[in-house]
Amino acid sequence: MADLLWPGDHRAGEVFTDAAFLAAMVSVEQAWLDALAAAGVAAGAVRLAGAAGPADLPALAEGAEADGNPVTGLVALLRERTGSGWVHRGLTSQDVVDTALVLCLRDALGRVRADAGRQAGALAGLVREHRTTLMAGRTLTQHAVPITFGLKAATWLQALCAAVERLERGPAPPAQFGGAAGTLAAPAELAGGAAAALAVAEDAAARLGLAWAAPWHTERSALTGPADALVGLADVWGRIGGDVALLSRPEIGELREAAGGRSSTMPGKANPVLSVLLRRHALAAPALAATLHTAAAAYADERPDGAWHAEWAPLRTLARRSVTAAAQAADLLEGLVVDPGRMRSRAERAAATLTAEQRAMGGPGADPGAYLGAADPIIDAALHRAGRLWKDL
Amino acid sequence: MADLLWPGDHRAGEVFTDAAFLAAMVSVEQAWLDALAAAGVAAGAVRLAGAAGPADLPALAEGAEADGNPVTGLVALLRERTGSGWVHRGLTSQDVVDTALVLCLRDALGRVRADAGRQAGALAGLVREHRTTLMAGRTLTQHAVPITFGLKAATWLQALCAAVERLERGPAPPAQFGGAAGTLAAPAELAGGAAAALAVAEDAAARLGLAWAAPWHTERSALTGPADALVGLADVWGRIGGDVALLSRPEIGELREAAGGRSSTMPGKANPVLSVLLRRHALAAPALAATLHTAAAAYADERPDGAWHAEWAPLRTLARRSVTAAAQAADLLEGLVVDPGRMRSRAERAAATLTAEQRAMGGPGADPGAYLGAADPIIDAALHRAGRLWKDL
Amino acid sequence: MADLLWPGDHRAGEVFTDAAFLAAMVSVEQAWLDALAAAGVAAGAVRLAGAAGPADLPALAEGAEADGNPVTGLVALLRERTGSGWVHRGLTSQDVVDTALVLCLRDALGRVRADAGRQAGALAGLVREHRTTLMAGRTLTQHAVPITFGLKAATWLQALCAAVERLERGPAPPAQFGGAAGTLAAPAELAGGAAAALAVAEDAAARLGLAWAAPWHTERSALTGPADALVGLADVWGRIGGDVALLSRPEIGELREAAGGRSSTMPGKANPVLSVLLRRHALAAPALAATLHTAAAAYADERPDGAWHAEWAPLRTLARRSVTAAAQAADLLEGLVVDPGRMRSRAERAAATLTAEQRAMGGPGADPGAYLGAADPIIDAALHRAGRLWKDL
Amino acid sequence: MADLLWPGDHRAGEVFTDAAFLAAMVSVEQAWLDALAAAGVAAGAVRLAGAAGPADLPALAEGAEADGNPVTGLVALLRERTGSGWVHRGLTSQDVVDTALVLCLRDALGRVRADAGRQAGALAGLVREHRTTLMAGRTLTQHAVPITFGLKAATWLQALCAAVERLERGPAPPAQFGGAAGTLAAPAELAGGAAAALAVAEDAAARLGLAWAAPWHTERSALTGPADALVGLADVWGRIGGDVALLSRPEIGELREAAGGRSSTMPGKANPVLSVLLRRHALAAPALAATLHTAAAAYADERPDGAWHAEWAPLRTLARRSVTAAAQAADLLEGLVVDPGRMRSRAERAAATLTAEQRAMGGPGADPGAYLGAADPIIDAALHRAGRLWKDL
Repeated sequence: MADLLWPGDHRAGEVFTDAAFLAAMVSVEQAWLDALAAAGVAAGAVRLAGAAGPADLPALAEGAEADGNPVTGLVALLRERTGSGWVHRGLTSQDVVDTALVLCLRDALGRVRADAGRQAGALAGLVREHRTTLMAGRTLTQHAVPITFGLKAATWLQALCAAVERLERGPAPPAQFGGAAGTLAAPAELAGGAAAALAVAEDAAARLGLAWAAPWHTERSALTGPADALVGLADVWGRIGGDVALLSRPEIGELREAAGGRSSTMPGKANPVLSVLLRRHALAAPALAATLHTAAAAYADERPDGAWHAEWAPLRTLARRSVTAAAQAADLLEGLVVDPGRMRSRAERAAATLTAEQRAMGGPGADPGAYLGAADPIIDAALHRAGRLWKDL
Repeated sequence: MADLLWPGDHRAGEVFTDAAFLAAMVSVEQAWLDALAAAGVAAGAVRLAGAAGPADLPALAEGAEADGNPVTGLVALLRERTGSGWVHRGLTSQDVVDTALVLCLRDALGRVRADAGRQAGALAGLVREHRTTLMAGRTLTQHAVPITFGLKAATWLQALCAAVERLERGPAPPAQFGGAAGTLAAPAELAGGAAAALAVAEDAAARLGLAWAAPWHTERSALTGPADALVGLADVWGRIGGDVALLSRPEIGELREAAGGRSSTMPGKANPVLSVLLRRHALAAPALAATLHTAAAAYADERPDGAWHAEWAPLRTLARRSVTAAAQAADLLEGLVVDPGRMRSRAERAAATLTAEQRAMGGPGADPGAYLGAADPIIDAALHRAGRLWKDL
Repeated sequence: MADLLWPGDHRAGEVFTDAAFLAAMVSVEQAWLDALAAAGVAAGAVRLAGAAGPADLPALAEGAEADGNPVTGLVALLRERTGSGWVHRGLTSQDVVDTALVLCLRDALGRVRADAGRQAGALAGLVREHRTTLMAGRTLTQHAVPITFGLKAATWLQALCAAVERLERGPAPPAQFGGAAGTLAAPAELAGGAAAALAVAEDAAARLGLAWAAPWHTERSALTGPADALVGLADVWGRIGGDVALLSRPEIGELREAAGGRSSTMPGKANPVLSVLLRRHALAAPALAATLHTAAAAYADERPDGAWHAEWAPLRTLARRSVTAAAQAADLLEGLVVDPGRMRSRAERAAATLTAEQRAMGGPGADPGAYLGAADPIIDAALHRAGRLWKDL
Repeated sequence: MADLLWPGDHRAGEVFTDAAFLAAMVSVEQAWLDALAAAGVAAGAVRLAGAAGPADLPALAEGAEADGNPVTGLVALLRERTGSGWVHRGLTSQDVVDTALVLCLRDALGRVRADAGRQAGALAGLVREHRTTLMAGRTLTQHAVPITFGLKAATWLQALCAAVERLERGPAPPAQFGGAAGTLAAPAELAGGAAAALAVAEDAAARLGLAWAAPWHTERSALTGPADALVGLADVWGRIGGDVALLSRPEIGELREAAGGRSSTMPGKANPVLSVLLRRHALAAPALAATLHTAAAAYADERPDGAWHAEWAPLRTLARRSVTAAAQAADLLEGLVVDPGRMRSRAERAAATLTAEQRAMGGPGADPGAYLGAADPIIDAALHRAGRLWKDL
């Protein structure tokens, strides 16, 4: 999969594609069927894998409009092709869609986590290599006091740590098995009581590697929580991309992407493409999570009339773009070209400005390299924090 | 094209798909090439149609990441396959992408306009048929004073008129032909001066049926304007969908969609699916236009470092969803089933409440049908306004 | 009025403050009362001015929670203090709030327009003065082809024109006089029929200098339209602020604000404060208009259960911030310090890069001043467009 | 403090007002001064309390425009009035504003937590009282399968638990003491080294009851995290308000607010005002947090040029509205009037529909009270979860 209008989208491969979502829905139906069978409710084993696949997507997608979601059509197809009337018995369409969303989101988060690790590794390397690389600190666009590039990279690393910690803090991804109105009435009817129904639901969740949770048909923090965390990561990547783009300007020239993007008309031009693409993601991500919240608040009744349907596509978009951006950020950082000489010489030329504060504090105020304050222990703190998240850093 | 996670997306067909966008980019290159040739700058006629097509999409999309946009790759391919080095001479990638965005958006707007006409026709029919169909007016969820269903439909029609008028008010869609930094320096170099370059640009725009405009590389109202107008339409459809969903509740039962959506587990259930899907669109649309504005304000320099790239996908998403929703809204209104008896009987049962205000004004306050105020001329005003927009109403 | 957390807010003075809104509501009640009296419905003249004022604000604001809006409390107070039971007769609370919103918004728009004129004047001056001031054109952060600063200012001016044209394109601000459910039933009861009620409503609107319109209780384009246009202006000011902030960087130093902001710790630092504050507005504005759209789509029934209440504060915030930003943008542009020498010398040092494209087009490619394409006619077009909007430019 | 355009705002009292923010900034300067003194850096004790107060607000707010933030003006005033040049020595304006933001936010969160406890208590009461109160379950607006009102209240309680757990999960609110560019260079200069500077910073943080953290000048999760969590709460309150508003419709009439809001024209009307005001908050909240993210991603350099300034007002607005909504939600739930008879009789009249699924599962399908599935253990799970968060429930 690739997207002409979102360059880099192919990085996300099959994560959360229509095909992946279909496969996830089939997995959910399978887990439920297996749990019913294990509980002695449904007869024998039925294999759904292969009973529906990418070739069915156009018909399923078009058919989804008639019922508002793709489950009714999928169930009809699975029942017809397997001959098993037990498919989907006891579930509601929202159970299948929500659990499939969680499965696809889990895949995306796994990819994001892996590439965040790459980013952390690259950042730790930059921090260590440039711990003492003097450069001008800049605030509100103007020269302020001196820093080192290692310190700047350490603040990027701190930001990455904070965003990843936030992602990890959330509860385990839950399955959704609630039945028509969140009572599991149909499973209870089939399995012979509430306890048996809950046992089937827990078993089905476990088969998918998901946590069981009380039905959350109208409580959407299982989606808004990770979405907000992904926006937190987008913020970090956008901020790093912004700094790199800025410091790549020819008038500054302290950083450079490993491979610049070409122009279609100007030979020799090298654009900071990865930075640009990360900034792009950061500009567009907050609105996606906001949509999920707008929808979450519009839930009504036991299952709602539009709010649920509004979530699927923005969640997918945010997830895929996060996977793409995670990979791009890792590439950017792993390939980042630093020009310590240019950093240092600029700081030295701007020494009078960069040490004005020091003089105002009664210090000597001549050598920017001697006005670095606690840069060193702050760098240590960042490396220590990262070391707790990524053991092998 | 169809989208499992946005039921109804197939309604938009090929509007603004990757294939359509590729074709639009090729059209832009063709128009430019033809204008160069007509001006005697480039030699002879070269046909680009067929030189790049859907089969090239995966490679073009993946390749776009390296340069940040798909134009560099496309140009290489077109030059190679046609053997013409004149392809794209004088343009910059943003010229091609922006003009192709405008072309795809124009297609979408055409579809939206056509279906808005269907909606207006259906609404005018409802207004006329139910001009005197008494029903309870409701405010803040409670019974207020009486209205007629014709009046309610007339307020929907007024809202549609306002949104369509807004769409029509905007300037004609402009082509973008500015060259690397908005000076048309390369075309001027090729064509022998500024006037000749502008003449080529105007000719190329005309060949695409677009207006010429001064380069708008960093001035994005050509996109944000129509996008805001599309959100205005989404507001209208969402509000109609909300009313229909509400009045379809079994406890109210005054409206019903022609064909209800099925449940995957509850036999006989008929969900107001089109209303649900319209509400979905309205929940998600504002964030898309907001993203375009966020990007528009982040433009810097002569062409920016991320803001531009953030626009393409949200614009496409908003455009396709608008086409889909326009068709769904037309279907909803054309098929809407009204139960005048139930409307009337509820209004009569609630007569005491609905006429409490009339009594407070010193009126008789017994017959809700005699407290309709200016419903009639307000209905006339709506039909008149619509009649100016759609002559054959 | 001033706001510690939105520096510059005092620029908006009393525009749309609680006191201004209260006064606007009183004006609406007055206009209605006068129209009733003129029609011979209500007896004699009652002066409301002075019957409620800033001293009443705390009680009115707190009291508003009980009914959800401040009108019920205000009406009780006006009736008690004037002894006239005719106050508000025939209106609904939404009539008063909506019309007062329109009045306050009109004040804000007037201020914005005036300061947009100042901006246009300053920009035209910059365009004329720097028509031939050579500078490096920059795209995706890198040097591209040459421009002049006059051309850059002309693109800012074009953007301002587009945004102001959009603001002007909208329909005249409408009064809202619809009664409890948009039928004017109460006015009709009082005035003796639909035609008489409409005449009263039209007269009341005219007394406020507003257009009459069919009741728009659930059709919110009268608010979303201007709000979107204000965001369009925010985009322009944000983009200008971004460019100025960028070109004020010490490594570039081609522009400078007249008076830089001080640092609380670094002596001598001069921050591009106005640019910073404009960027701030542009970052926050799109979400405010998006909220209005989200609300607009959530309207239900004849008057809604939350959507209406969600509009007032975001609209006020957007309006006041727009007034503030308009003044700041005018100050910024009027005081902008340009360093033509630095612009020119950088362009000359970067000549090889800036003319690489020219060489690729077969041109000489040595002198950036000779590769300006159509900069001149594009500048003329901007001045011409602005001259149509502001006659005295 | 009260706000005519946000009824209920007075509930938030002085939380995060300009006066509270000023007091918080003074506390930050005091804590820093005390820490400097305790470390033997600054001489003697200086009391800042009283040196600046509400009377200074207009001048401070207006003056803030010149520097972009209110700190420079405040420091000048504090130094002048106390005669102590040690005020603010070693800090940067962002240290003071950020730490004051955290202090004000902490106050708001404390209020929100307290009222969430009230909500939980009320919900637990509803759950227990109505565990077996039969009612129609509704999905996509239509009758689905039976539930009990206790179960519905339990799903509200689960949602509240999830949102509060999320709020609690975040890291402790951190102080910001980083100096001009996050190196604590000035404190180190004053205190005699990095370790001494860090000790001063940690001491100052402790004096404010805040955690110490590495400078987070450009890493904004300390604000976006709580903001997202507040939006999560808004989602819950909006959803509850939506359900109450819906079930208060006269055609349904199963719930009612304790005190309905009056109409300005219709006598006897009782609007679900608290529900309406909660829905309002939920419609507007997501955009506020999204703005914080948009800003967070736009941070550049060591301190940014607009992104920081864009955060303050939206954060304040979100915080105050959250305090207001928390109190309103508590009032709503504590006063909620349930009509069990109407719930039950509707469920019984709709028995055939509500048990259609049961029949499809092969069950008897006649008595909705016998098709409640696992409602009971799900209710127990909600009470258990809430009991872990609020011990005395």
